Amino acid sequence: MIKPIILKGFRDSLPKDEIQREISIEKIKKAFRSFGFVPIDTPILEYEEILLKKGGGETDKQIFSFTDNGDRRVAMRFDLTVPFARFVAQYEHDLTFPFKRYHIAKVFRGEKPQKGRYREFYQCDFDIIGSTSLYSDFEIISLMIYTIKELGLSKFKIHINSRDILHNYITKLGLSDKETFIFHQIDKLKKIGKEKMKKELLDQISEKDCDKIINFISIDKKESFLSSLKRLEDLSDSKEEGARLREIYHLLKEIGYNDFILLDSSITRGLDYYTSIVFETFLDEYPEIGSICSGGRYNDLASLYTKSKISGIGASIGLDRLLSIKESNDEIFTKIALIVDKVEGSRDLSYKLAFALREKGIRVDVYADDKKVDKQQKYVRSLNIPYQIIINEEAVKTKKFNLKNNNDNSFKNSLSISDLIDFLTGE
Amino acid sequence: MIKPIILKGFRDSLPKDEIQREISIEKIKKAFRSFGFVPIDTPILEYEEILLKKGGGETDKQIFSFTDNGDRRVAMRFDLTVPFARFVAQYEHDLTFPFKRYHIAKVFRGEKPQKGRYREFYQCDFDIIGSTSLYSDFEIISLMIYTIKELGLSKFKIHINSRDILHNYITKLGLSDKETFIFHQIDKLKKIGKEKMKKELLDQISEKDCDKIINFISIDKKESFLSSLKRLEDLSDSKEEGARLREIYHLLKEIGYNDFILLDSSITRGLDYYTSIVFETFLDEYPEIGSICSGGRYNDLASLYTKSKISGIGASIGLDRLLSIKESNDEIFTKIALIVDKVEGSRDLSYKLAFALREKGIRVDVYADDKKVDKQQKYVRSLNIPYQIIINEEAVKTKKFNLKNNNDNSFKNSLSISDLIDFLTGE
Repeated sequence: MIKPIILKGFRDSLPKDEIQREISIEKIKKAFRSFGFVPIDTPILEYEEILLKKGGGETDKQIFSFTDNGDRRVAMRFDLTVPFARFVAQYEHDLTFPFKRYHIAKVFRGEKPQKGRYREFYQCDFDIIGSTSLYSDFEIISLMIYTIKELGLSKFKIHINSRDILHNYITKLGLSDKETFIFHQIDKLKKIGKEKMKKELLDQISEKDCDKIINFISIDKKESFLSSLKRLEDLSDSKEEGARLREIYHLLKEIGYNDFILLDSSITRGLDYYTSIVFETFLDEYPEIGSICSGGRYNDLASLYTKSKISGIGASIGLDRLLSIKESNDEIFTKIALIVDKVEGSRDLSYKLAFALREKGIRVDVYADDKKVDKQQKYVRSLNIPYQIIINEEAVKTKKFNLKNNNDNSFKNSLSISDLIDFLTGE
Repeated sequence: MIKPIILKGFRDSLPKDEIQREISIEKIKKAFRSFGFVPIDTPILEYEEILLKKGGGETDKQIFSFTDNGDRRVAMRFDLTVPFARFVAQYEHDLTFPFKRYHIAKVFRGEKPQKGRYREFYQCDFDIIGSTSLYSDFEIISLMIYTIKELGLSKFKIHINSRDILHNYITKLGLSDKETFIFHQIDKLKKIGKEKMKKELLDQISEKDCDKIINFISIDKKESFLSSLKRLEDLSDSKEEGARLREIYHLLKEIGYNDFILLDSSITRGLDYYTSIVFETFLDEYPEIGSICSGGRYNDLASLYTKSKISGIGASIGLDRLLSIKESNDEIFTKIALIVDKVEGSRDLSYKLAFALREKGIRVDVYADDKKVDKQQKYVRSLNIPYQIIINEEAVKTKKFNLKNNNDNSFKNSLSISDLIDFLTGE
């Protein structure tokens, strides 16, 4: 006998959780499609060489890689960005640009397992590539807001920054040679706090410059987007980038989305390949789970695989984080009627009824096994089934059915099939 | 520069194909749910020991396995049945039986790549476990028919057999000790033909018995299900199993599904763990692609991991085979309007219009980049976008829009937003 267990850092998904994930993914896809995005997929296994080079030291150590039976070094993808870069380079001449794609799939990292971190998890990426337009920036941000709202969340803020503005300010301070260092320290702010970040900055820059930078990246949540922008724009001499962000803000206001964004010059994103606009999204009520949707603009996605400069903008939804806080919402699964058959030889009627209801879009289960009442009731309770349709002698004779509401144990009696359809679809 | 290529036997999925797959999977899930089935998921990577033992020699050689950084022998799943058996053993006391689950996910096999065979592919399994009822057999078969019809196919036949009936016949012939051999030879019939199969059978049994068996498993497509059943039942003394199949047939007839099934005593399925009813499904117009949905009843799913005898019935849809023949049907992706903006400074209007239409469930893309007409037209043609909404000076002034039908280049002019909604949702 082999003990049935799974690997450390991996998870099974039982129906309760998998239902949540399926519903959320379907809502996200629907939102993406309504903006004209299309899906792609890539293999989970690729040449190690393709996947390794990009991520740098940290990710390389975490990658699951091995030698296959054909003596090739292969690896399991650790994100969806590197395969996308390889994909775009490979099919450059088959794709139509601007290319708007989404990709929702599993990725694998041999990270030290810890609370909320797994070795197999979902990424949910969407990008517009082959466009440098500010309107593409607007489209990604508005799609982020639209999608998060479709997921039933309304209390969130997208913290937007332009790395260009911060870059201009650092240049103005004469600290260009320390820029990468400064960006990385600032990126840690939300995790380690202002005091610790300052201590680390002081390692390489003067206290005076340090205070200027901290002042520059400190946000006052009461200040309006446009007023923050004006201040930072002036401090950093960033007229062009300022005008771009102002137009994006203006469009978001036109569609009533401006309350969902905040200018936050402390957002830098870790990765150096981001160029101008970057963003992270925080839920008002769950700041501790971190950003639930992050991304930014980049100007050279696929430099490892092609000479063509492919620029674009993209974002990634933290599906697992979102699912960790979302209330159970499995209506499309539990909103179902169970047909319970109490008479010998009446199965014809049970199944004919089931098919008539299914045809109208009602989900119907038939209790197929033995007729022991306690087993049936356990089934109803554990699956949280709201309605039972009873097949008794009377129903067999008259084709009128009794419907039991399992929540309050009330009955509606003598319903015809069309009464049942009206009632169950009207719910 | 690294050459952007993928591993032999693996595939990228470009939007055209991925759209097909997404639509098909969504239809399948909707069908499963309407019968009260719920989804689960398991990790792609498991302990090698868990995955290896079941499949036997052939599959063991094909498995992708390696030693991870923690010195564990791990492997990528090669099917969804073995993980399901492990899952059921592990959560036996948390699940409610009968347990109806579906699982649609990727599996991996290091097979020799050949036409239509890949090293990464989808499986699409659904099972009812913890029930020995004939009504569960009926539910699985009726769900198969319902799902295939929902996928837009109507010309197909499910070939049904009972291994019990064949077993009884072989016993009656006094060939019990050769039963496994005979089952495996018969399983090859559809691939190698009657002559070759007979030759192989003659290896171990007499010509007389051989002819009797061939006669027993030969089907006459014109004979009715009930008449074939009566004949085989009598020849093999299988009263009990005959009655069971007769009741299943009767219920299928009641819901108008009996024309989709055929009694075919040459169906044995390779795997020895199937017990009574087994089935394969063939498309009338594409017999060459083989069975598109197969399965059967088993009485000991998880014997490697638990002492509990878990019986059930299940089937698996050959998604890749189905997709290989399905006509392009990407209406939910192409049925989209593109807003084309021909006036400077009118983006507010474009995006407000886009959001007003999206709110009504219309999918809308806005051409965000430069205003070069030839690039826009290439975009429209390659993505097969049926409609364009033109933003011109007149539209900016009057808020009335011209709609171009890209198929016949006809126009509808001066439509209000509500005219547009009516027209585009009425399509």
